[in-house]
Amino acid sequence: MDYLYQRWAAHYLAAIVAGTLKVGERMPSLRVLMCLHGISLSTALQLCRQLETDGYLEARPRSGYFVRPRMRIRPVAEPRLEIDPAQYVGINARVSDFIARGRQQTIKHNFSVARCSPDLYPGVALKNAAIRALKHAPDLFVSAAPNKGHPALRAVLAKRAMRMGVLMSADEILITHGCIEALNLALRAVARPGDTIAVESPTFYGLLQVLESLGLRAIEIPTSPQTGISIEALELACQTYENIKAVVVVPHLQNPLGSIMPEAHKDRLVALCEAQHIPLIEDDTYSELINDEIPLFALKARDKTGNVIYCASLHKILAPGMRLGWMSGGRWQARIEMLKYAQTRDNEAWSQIAAAEYMASSAYDRHLRKLRSTLKTQRERTAEAIARYFPAGTRLNVPNGGLALWVELPEQLSSKRVFDAALQKGILIAPGLMFSSSQRFEHFIRINCGWPFSPEIDLALQNLGKIVYEAGGSLNNTQAHVYRK
Amino acid sequence: MDYLYQRWAAHYLAAIVAGTLKVGERMPSLRVLMCLHGISLSTALQLCRQLETDGYLEARPRSGYFVRPRMRIRPVAEPRLEIDPAQYVGINARVSDFIARGRQQTIKHNFSVARCSPDLYPGVALKNAAIRALKHAPDLFVSAAPNKGHPALRAVLAKRAMRMGVLMSADEILITHGCIEALNLALRAVARPGDTIAVESPTFYGLLQVLESLGLRAIEIPTSPQTGISIEALELACQTYENIKAVVVVPHLQNPLGSIMPEAHKDRLVALCEAQHIPLIEDDTYSELINDEIPLFALKARDKTGNVIYCASLHKILAPGMRLGWMSGGRWQARIEMLKYAQTRDNEAWSQIAAAEYMASSAYDRHLRKLRSTLKTQRERTAEAIARYFPAGTRLNVPNGGLALWVELPEQLSSKRVFDAALQKGILIAPGLMFSSSQRFEHFIRINCGWPFSPEIDLALQNLGKIVYEAGGSLNNTQAHVYRK
Repeated sequence: MDYLYQRWAAHYLAAIVAGTLKVGERMPSLRVLMCLHGISLSTALQLCRQLETDGYLEARPRSGYFVRPRMRIRPVAEPRLEIDPAQYVGINARVSDFIARGRQQTIKHNFSVARCSPDLYPGVALKNAAIRALKHAPDLFVSAAPNKGHPALRAVLAKRAMRMGVLMSADEILITHGCIEALNLALRAVARPGDTIAVESPTFYGLLQVLESLGLRAIEIPTSPQTGISIEALELACQTYENIKAVVVVPHLQNPLGSIMPEAHKDRLVALCEAQHIPLIEDDTYSELINDEIPLFALKARDKTGNVIYCASLHKILAPGMRLGWMSGGRWQARIEMLKYAQTRDNEAWSQIAAAEYMASSAYDRHLRKLRSTLKTQRERTAEAIARYFPAGTRLNVPNGGLALWVELPEQLSSKRVFDAALQKGILIAPGLMFSSSQRFEHFIRINCGWPFSPEIDLALQNLGKIVYEAGGSLNNTQAHVYRK
Repeated sequence: MDYLYQRWAAHYLAAIVAGTLKVGERMPSLRVLMCLHGISLSTALQLCRQLETDGYLEARPRSGYFVRPRMRIRPVAEPRLEIDPAQYVGINARVSDFIARGRQQTIKHNFSVARCSPDLYPGVALKNAAIRALKHAPDLFVSAAPNKGHPALRAVLAKRAMRMGVLMSADEILITHGCIEALNLALRAVARPGDTIAVESPTFYGLLQVLESLGLRAIEIPTSPQTGISIEALELACQTYENIKAVVVVPHLQNPLGSIMPEAHKDRLVALCEAQHIPLIEDDTYSELINDEIPLFALKARDKTGNVIYCASLHKILAPGMRLGWMSGGRWQARIEMLKYAQTRDNEAWSQIAAAEYMASSAYDRHLRKLRSTLKTQRERTAEAIARYFPAGTRLNVPNGGLALWVELPEQLSSKRVFDAALQKGILIAPGLMFSSSQRFEHFIRINCGWPFSPEIDLALQNLGKIVYEAGGSLNNTQAHVYRK
């Protein structure tokens, strides 16, 4: 349990707590850390990230990590390593109910979705690329779509996969209708109704709905808000349940936790799944939203036997209105291609061409850098507002990327009560019950930070804070001024 | 078995054979037939269609039906009413093998697909509509797609459904990725792996692949090249198999047969499925390609209990490059919407807006009229070429619409041998083995008529005819000059 990066993180934490490194001072650079301690780049990066996630450091673009003022809110506690029995998910009615109720009411502030404001995406550039594509190929709408996806998009995706250490040819990539179809196909390729699938707990309700719709049972593996799925708990689950047919993991910026798996955990996870002959399904939807410029290696990058099925999408990072996902199915590729063909045939060409043109240009990386930095500000402002307006005992982590915060309400307060009361005021939140079929996360909510922080959002969070105070009648009227343990 | 329209068709056939009605003479108009014999419009229409399908009449736009010169080729024989045991389809490897082999070779003439030339679709108008849509709503790519499909498209589809006697509100329509996704969702809503589904035999291999991919068994119901699925055989199957969980039917221009179910058959089918509590899945992909201007009523138009799941698509009639299908799920609508959300989320908005704009204009009906008349010429020219170049004993029907011919090779000749030999010459055909998991259609081939008839196509059919001669070594070198029995 004690990794090299954790030891060095503790070392620097002690220096910060002792005042050897003061607020505003620069952390030694990654290069210096590597030389000083004889550690690898990934260990150096991981130690800085750990301190950043814990709120001791902040990354400044192109300058490195700096000691930041202390956060006023405690991080979410680590989970207990208990595994509930595998169960049919039974979550759909619950999730649908929350979603349907959100649609009935007039919503002024939607903190429930995991989505960014349209302004944060290159709408004009994509629109122009699409118009160009149509003008160059006026037969696009009236000719059959290219088999398995457009070659130009598959080529640019293969090229970008190299950045995450994944060597795959364009031929090994299959374009899908969003990551959700990729997950469907991956699960259908390796499991049959009644089978058990190991998932992170909590996890995004989209995955739980997919499992339920396919008649699969979910076994929820405790997952750390810092380091992601617990390898120990997964090992235990593999010993206890013989019929786990797949593990689905979001290694980078897990939804809803925002956790990022340390490199060593990824090694162990890939090795464990291989040794147990359990297909490992990687959902890499959020990697491009990690704050650092240096991309982390995917699970797929460690895959030597074709045991990892890689799934991703452009939905969160480039174009929420294009349903473009993709996957590489390892040794199940042929079966996945068959299932895709029988399920929805090939994706339409035009959005693929437009996305490919944009992604092949330097504008794409500029867009991603800007998006990351905007989201960082939005996450931090949202976290600060929660710290200011929510009662003492509220906890949250500010993840090192992504567009959501996972907030633990004080004193086991029911998120359902908060949901109900907030809905009355036109504020929509995602209650913890949507993220697990157990009751374990009943006192959590997920807050979207995808909209530019504004006085209106600040006021909505202030109102939400009041609702939390009111829902927990016994809470005294103190702020969440809780310093780090 | 003896319907009113059949009795009157026999009456007029006798008149034609006797020479009372001569080649080139006009058949009494529908109005006159109704008055003369006190029959309904649909009976009058059905009798003319029957004589047209059998090759005795031809429809001329806005002029009525005329006695045509005798066809030189016999229609495909009616099937025997035998039902094979229900079976797991096991067709995918076979179909994939044919498709893959077609992709390896350089294909000069593709008679295998069921697709029209891009020139037959309004590519320019759709392109312009799409560009307008983007200019009016520049956020299309970067905002979430509308829930369950774009309201404008759903509204125009609801309006057009009225023409086929179907009253459904836009709210009851769900937009899907082609008809293939609609069929997937319909089957997933009503059946579970291992269940048995009754299908027409032969049927399009896409459906057999869907069944196989979902772990469903197919029971193939004998289907007439003239009148579609045999209601008697289906009744028998319902008595024999207790666990039939759905019936999938293409009532209009069945693929590959081109059959059109008489209205009375439709009534009986809907009633039978209701009485047996078996969901009836209607695939209405081809209705708009029926030659007559008066649309036929859908099975869904007879549905009083929500037992019919209606599926259709724009793929063949408007835009093969847009993956736009839709469905109305009857009493399974809520479950289908859940499955769609969990499978691929909502369709992208752009192509829906472009299609909706075009379909709401009068240009759409003009396009359909032109497409029907073009396809009619192409079917007839193709049929004539086959009659000219193929050996005696070849049989085919010229269906009253659609884009394919179902050809029976003489003397039980193996279509696989013809496929192999044709592939060597760059000619791709769809062998009968792709359309059934039995061997029953081994001596059939489906020939696409979607491309404008040209000297090249004529030559390709001539070469195909030679291949058929060669494949059937024992056939003497006579043409298919077979007059009607």
